Amino acid sequence: RTEGGREMAAWARAVRGLLLDVSGVLYDSGGDGGVPIAGSVEAVRRIKASGLKLQFCTNETQATREKFVKKLQGMGFDISVAEVTAPAPAACRILKERSLRPHLLVHNDLVPEFAEIDKANPNCVVIGDAAENFTYANLNEAFRVLIGMEKPVLISLGRGRYYKETDGLKLDVGAYMKALEYACDVQAEVVGKPAKAFFESALAEMGVPPQEAIMIGDDIVNDVGGAQRCGMRALQVRTGKYRPCDENHPHVKPDAYVNNLAEAVDVILQQL
Amino acid sequence: RTEGGREMAAWARAVRGLLLDVSGVLYDSGGDGGVPIAGSVEAVRRIKASGLKLQFCTNETQATREKFVKKLQGMGFDISVAEVTAPAPAACRILKERSLRPHLLVHNDLVPEFAEIDKANPNCVVIGDAAENFTYANLNEAFRVLIGMEKPVLISLGRGRYYKETDGLKLDVGAYMKALEYACDVQAEVVGKPAKAFFESALAEMGVPPQEAIMIGDDIVNDVGGAQRCGMRALQVRTGKYRPCDENHPHVKPDAYVNNLAEAVDVILQQL
Repeated sequence: RTEGGREMAAWARAVRGLLLDVSGVLYDSGGDGGVPIAGSVEAVRRIKASGLKLQFCTNETQATREKFVKKLQGMGFDISVAEVTAPAPAACRILKERSLRPHLLVHNDLVPEFAEIDKANPNCVVIGDAAENFTYANLNEAFRVLIGMEKPVLISLGRGRYYKETDGLKLDVGAYMKALEYACDVQAEVVGKPAKAFFESALAEMGVPPQEAIMIGDDIVNDVGGAQRCGMRALQVRTGKYRPCDENHPHVKPDAYVNNLAEAVDVILQQL
Repeated sequence: RTEGGREMAAWARAVRGLLLDVSGVLYDSGGDGGVPIAGSVEAVRRIKASGLKLQFCTNETQATREKFVKKLQGMGFDISVAEVTAPAPAACRILKERSLRPHLLVHNDLVPEFAEIDKANPNCVVIGDAAENFTYANLNEAFRVLIGMEKPVLISLGRGRYYKETDGLKLDVGAYMKALEYACDVQAEVVGKPAKAFFESALAEMGVPPQEAIMIGDDIVNDVGGAQRCGMRALQVRTGKYRPCDENHPHVKPDAYVNNLAEAVDVILQQL
């Protein structure tokens, strides 16, 4: 079931940079933090040795990039903080540019990413996957801050519906975003995949234009669809949250399927 | 500012029954349960003495009808359980008709309304204003039950955005309904105002056709708009959640405004 090789031949020769999703591509979440997907540690090393530019593009908002990178390094991945594009730093740029002072409804471990941001007298709400912080009291508080504004500004770190942890499925930030959107009759500004500005900032980090970059991800909508709308090619791996029914998605068709990151790297490096 | 009298003259003579919203029309919620709105206790008595049919039509889901009625009786209102149309009993009818076994995400005080309903091995989720029961764990649990169904069925007891309590604004059931709708890519079936079936069951209880009934409420969308879509006339009172900007609502225009329930009853009884 590897149709990647032939289909990619025509355009993969132009590639100069790769964007990699992290969870479900490099590793699978598990009880004690995660397990590398077979061949992925070596695949990242081979990308770096090839001279291709590389950026990791994640919607992770349950930890600072420092913590996140440390976890991946602990699994053996060659990765540094500067190589990670994540929603919280992108949100911080927006907050600074627009002089916004956030009320935060985020995971405790993400709070340090906002250390340098003025949070007094808030004029916007930033919502991330707050997990256990999604209490009735905290949701009402974020709502009251938002509804009290003359023109409510809601910034959401992603729009995921749900995700899987070892103890079962969990509602993701997108569900809580929808609750606040409805209550306040406001449209959230989404930072993170699939937002165009988010992919563009990852591309800018590499200094590679979209037509010379390939996104590799497990999420048909947020990774593949988002990258393609940016003018990039995108591969879907058959790991992580990939499901066979993704291959009949009504709107999004990846430029190729690969069984996993190792195979993606095989096929791409063959074209160079 | 009483334009009610003249405007209503033409059609109010046909009236045979009144539907009254409760919170914001009969009483205002307060710290220790509520305070009657001036003239409302007497207004209910005058309606009953006039021979008009009367039904109370509420979206209240934080208590059984028994408890709710007891609270109102305590404030001096002449009201009985049989005169109250509320979402939970309406939902129970639907559950029985369609052999649905609910997973309940509702207020503890509402649970007894579902005492006779089979809740084993659930094949739908019923969500009400669960208040403190809207915990992260309970929301994830309701979500897991729903996403685990081949064809998810979500029944929502109302679609309110928020409401006010003495300690501040609170997110209402509609916000949490939207979160589950988004996560499961499903559309909730709403029981309660402004659903047409809900008004129709209140009318059936009185045995009065819509064109001979008047709805009196403080909510421009759920009371006035909902009743009008059912073929009823509807008055908005300037008490409860009424706001002056309601009078410029883009879609809904009440058949008349009245300052409060007492004035509504004055004007209606004058026409008989």
